[in-house]
Amino acid sequence: MLIGSGNLAFHLHKALLGAEGVSLLALVARRLESLSDFEAAVPKFPMGTLLEDADLYVLAVSDHAIAPVMRHYAGSKSLFVHTSGAMGLEVLEPVQRKGVFYPLQTFTKNREINFESVPICIETSLESDIAILSTIAGTLSKKVLEISTEKRRSLHLAAVYINNFSNHMVYLGEMLCKKAGLPENLLYPLLHETCEKVQDLSAYEAQTGPARRNDTQTQQAHLNLLKEAPDKEFYKMISESIRRTYEQ
Amino acid sequence: MLIGSGNLAFHLHKALLGAEGVSLLALVARRLESLSDFEAAVPKFPMGTLLEDADLYVLAVSDHAIAPVMRHYAGSKSLFVHTSGAMGLEVLEPVQRKGVFYPLQTFTKNREINFESVPICIETSLESDIAILSTIAGTLSKKVLEISTEKRRSLHLAAVYINNFSNHMVYLGEMLCKKAGLPENLLYPLLHETCEKVQDLSAYEAQTGPARRNDTQTQQAHLNLLKEAPDKEFYKMISESIRRTYEQ
Repeated sequence: MLIGSGNLAFHLHKALLGAEGVSLLALVARRLESLSDFEAAVPKFPMGTLLEDADLYVLAVSDHAIAPVMRHYAGSKSLFVHTSGAMGLEVLEPVQRKGVFYPLQTFTKNREINFESVPICIETSLESDIAILSTIAGTLSKKVLEISTEKRRSLHLAAVYINNFSNHMVYLGEMLCKKAGLPENLLYPLLHETCEKVQDLSAYEAQTGPARRNDTQTQQAHLNLLKEAPDKEFYKMISESIRRTYEQ
Repeated sequence: MLIGSGNLAFHLHKALLGAEGVSLLALVARRLESLSDFEAAVPKFPMGTLLEDADLYVLAVSDHAIAPVMRHYAGSKSLFVHTSGAMGLEVLEPVQRKGVFYPLQTFTKNREINFESVPICIETSLESDIAILSTIAGTLSKKVLEISTEKRRSLHLAAVYINNFSNHMVYLGEMLCKKAGLPENLLYPLLHETCEKVQDLSAYEAQTGPARRNDTQTQQAHLNLLKEAPDKEFYKMISESIRRTYEQ
């Protein structure tokens, strides 16, 4: 059973439908209309429905929705897992058999994701439940890892840097280009090579630029171009972090 | 004539040798030994050599080396261009015919670059020189643009965000993963998708995560994981910048 109707739930339901040896018995959501994009053939039930045949209930809902959803299932004897990078097992408290099924990836509805290559981090409160969770995760992905909540939280934080923060740097670069009245596509070959390089080399080796080589003259020229105080602070802080990385 | 022996000089000399309708007459460097990796067939001369047949002298040297190199050529009647994103024309002062030939890309010696797709930003002090510079740049790249020093400087700053800063975010993410005792390759599928997504969508649309959706609870949990004060400040500043982006 899959509970939720967001980006992850959408991708997960598609992957589960395509996976061998596992069957998606039902979809559950607070508002059933929100499942209209989902496969029509899969039965849809309201929150709190329990099916005798279900081995696993997967909550693909946002962090703050986990506890409210679980109130519908208090006392159930089934295995419930959430998909959050940040939450511990205790958030599933009203049931005994708790677990985590955290796919380390960024999901957007309109982009296809090959689940086979997505690392899935699993954890269970009862050791006896790890086998079933591992088996189901294994039908979706080739990379299933048992990882503690503590390590998963570090991984989730790392993912924010790798994805959200790097993406924001690209956004700020695109804005600087736009503000100068230049077409953004001028930057695309550089963005492409940046991406290729950071995947071929480590980010440590791939680094270049004024902060890397401690070229304070160019950094000062850049600071002069940045008009606003917070933009200057921002540039200084990141440059300083790069400098520190290479002085060690 | 190509002056310099660094990453850009290396890639530029290879591209010039492969380009139709242009011939690379000579390579020039302060220390000729530094040209040992360069094509043996091209004559190599010491700094200050002038060749009567040369239409163009390209300085592929670091910013602070431009002025010292130019002292060797004071009073020459030839066209001299530098390859810097940050410097103006005046740095070429001891000659009259000045110009800029700035390829917007990140260059590393061991990585092949297809120059055809690298935007080349050109500028000259004399309007009569733009044609020859444009023609030579056009033999290397399909994207040659006449761009003022002011705009080129903004572009150079944008490139720092797009390349150096985003690369550093990936580095910090990789370090968090390593510190948690987890293998870095766990993050590769996420890095790959991050790269694909930011090239398919705009960075603005591609953004996800706690700062984007103003999820302060998750952000606080992340801050608790970051032990050191500068790391906390760093996380806060970038998250705040993301939040501001989406409240507008």
